[in-house]
Amino acid sequence: MDAAHLRRRVQGVLDAFLEEQRAVLAAVSVDTLPLLDAVQDLLVGGKRLRPAFCFWGWRGAGGPDPVAADVAVRVAASLELFQAAALLHDDVMDRSDTRRGRPAMHRAFAARHRERGWLGDPEQFGDGAAVLAGDLCLSWNDELLSRALREHLADGGHGLPGAPARVEATRREFDRMRTELMAGQYLDVLAQSGGSSGDDPVAVAREVIRFKSAKYTIEHPLLVGAALAGASPALRAAYSAYGLALGEAFQLRDDVLGVFGDPEATGKPAGDDLREGKRTVLVALASRAADARGRSLLEEHLGRRDLDEDGVQRVRDVLRGSGALEETERMIASQVAAARRALDGAQVAEPARTVLLDLVGTATERTA
Amino acid sequence: MDAAHLRRRVQGVLDAFLEEQRAVLAAVSVDTLPLLDAVQDLLVGGKRLRPAFCFWGWRGAGGPDPVAADVAVRVAASLELFQAAALLHDDVMDRSDTRRGRPAMHRAFAARHRERGWLGDPEQFGDGAAVLAGDLCLSWNDELLSRALREHLADGGHGLPGAPARVEATRREFDRMRTELMAGQYLDVLAQSGGSSGDDPVAVAREVIRFKSAKYTIEHPLLVGAALAGASPALRAAYSAYGLALGEAFQLRDDVLGVFGDPEATGKPAGDDLREGKRTVLVALASRAADARGRSLLEEHLGRRDLDEDGVQRVRDVLRGSGALEETERMIASQVAAARRALDGAQVAEPARTVLLDLVGTATERTA
Repeated sequence: MDAAHLRRRVQGVLDAFLEEQRAVLAAVSVDTLPLLDAVQDLLVGGKRLRPAFCFWGWRGAGGPDPVAADVAVRVAASLELFQAAALLHDDVMDRSDTRRGRPAMHRAFAARHRERGWLGDPEQFGDGAAVLAGDLCLSWNDELLSRALREHLADGGHGLPGAPARVEATRREFDRMRTELMAGQYLDVLAQSGGSSGDDPVAVAREVIRFKSAKYTIEHPLLVGAALAGASPALRAAYSAYGLALGEAFQLRDDVLGVFGDPEATGKPAGDDLREGKRTVLVALASRAADARGRSLLEEHLGRRDLDEDGVQRVRDVLRGSGALEETERMIASQVAAARRALDGAQVAEPARTVLLDLVGTATERTA
Repeated sequence: MDAAHLRRRVQGVLDAFLEEQRAVLAAVSVDTLPLLDAVQDLLVGGKRLRPAFCFWGWRGAGGPDPVAADVAVRVAASLELFQAAALLHDDVMDRSDTRRGRPAMHRAFAARHRERGWLGDPEQFGDGAAVLAGDLCLSWNDELLSRALREHLADGGHGLPGAPARVEATRREFDRMRTELMAGQYLDVLAQSGGSSGDDPVAVAREVIRFKSAKYTIEHPLLVGAALAGASPALRAAYSAYGLALGEAFQLRDDVLGVFGDPEATGKPAGDDLREGKRTVLVALASRAADARGRSLLEEHLGRRDLDEDGVQRVRDVLRGSGALEETERMIASQVAAARRALDGAQVAEPARTVLLDLVGTATERTA
């Protein structure tokens, strides 16, 4: 199964599952179906990174190539529902206007409220709808995963030995992923408020991306797949080293694209990260390295909702002039090398090894 | 095991589980521990209604009295974590100031932000923290439940037959509970905005409390416990009839207390439901029955954040004068009778039958 094939399978699992939930919601009231439509719309986009890492973590640990929507594909697909929940809640928390170039769900539901002339505050209605849609996705994520695991047990575990222990280990990785992602999100909210207990902004920003991105996007999905296949401790350690290194590189690339990326390609207005005042590693490096003028320019510009293109350009000049951009690119290159090295010594079954090596490029050389 | 004993056992399960999660969060960063403290504070209060109905649903279907923190107690306790998530998110969505007489979590975290002079908008910080704490509770709810069910299977099912089928049925009830509660919450948000597709405000308000209260607080917890014990279809049907009737009565009592209750006893300022503009059955009955003057008084007063005690009193006069209060009390009495009747013909094992009959009184004759 190649990447495009996996994406189709994942989409198929999600479509079938959400059609089941449509029936559950319709039995409550057709008035609730817009929530499901919004979730389906959100799930159409996306790079499917987490399902990919989960699936290749499984294959690399010797899990067989599924012939149908088998346990590995379903567990991988369930991670997209968790991700949908994280995006929905994140956009409410960040008061973001757009997601993948379209209005964020809370904004779309606020607009629906406004257009229909409903009572009360449209923003409050939009926030409520998006919080509830996220809550539904959190429940569904777990429902899909739990059901896949139960059926895997009932099926005798696909011929792999030790199904109960594998299922137990899979749940533990999954549970850890959820708690650590939410903890990482809080660290991020705290860092954006300047409320972190750490003194060094670069270290604080790196801690945030460790939990919010590296572990969540790559390490945990790999380990979920690995646990499902009963991977050895050595392979799990290699996956962790690969995942943490690549995950940091991935997020650093994201931070660079958030300021220097092409809006057409990223689907986000250039400089939105700056308008939100995100304390990225890139920004933290710049505030450390810039001269007094550059530092005060950063402090004045960051978090300004009305920051115009000229302002964005001035910040870009500081990020470049201070050497922060170059330093970030150096960090990306170093983590990319570390990720490749982690796979070198590990017993990763083909074709997963080749795919995981390719994903290093996909995740860090991208332009969107 | 009596009610007080059950409450202690449930608290013990929650305490032990949250201490485990404290270790997981502390390993991420001590900065995240205030989230856990807030959840623990929230979990100290509460009537523990859902665990009680879950537990007595189990006992009434022949589940043995647990000698330790066994599966029934742990599954019952897990429902409190779901409820904590619902409360945390509800308070953000409703922009509520207080919960059980203390500042709602999002307000407490906004105050923390303000006191420490952190960057950005204190309200946004508070909302973010409470959304994330709710997300953690949703994950933890499921983690605790799933683990209890896996260990139940591994233990051979406490000597009850058909453990895999019982676990499967328990999960299905639990999954349905989660989706239907969130759907019900959305129906509520929609009803408060006047956006429901139904024409009759009384019917709309009753539909909201059916899903948001009757099913969620009573029917689903009973059915989760019943499924775990392998209850017969006849018993499950009796539990449903009992749960839906008592649940509606319970919520109608809540609505009455929200306007006529003693703030000392309820822990909420009198009339807060009116200030939030809640379209309760009580209010919907009054707008239907009141004369033109009463109706316009209601429309003017409902949802006014600055409604003072005189204004609350004027609304009370309309609710009384229109006969809506009396009609609501009649509905409560009729549902109380229906709940008792549902148990009459059913094979509910003692002492569960007696306890469930007593709970009819506790839930509907209360003053807080």
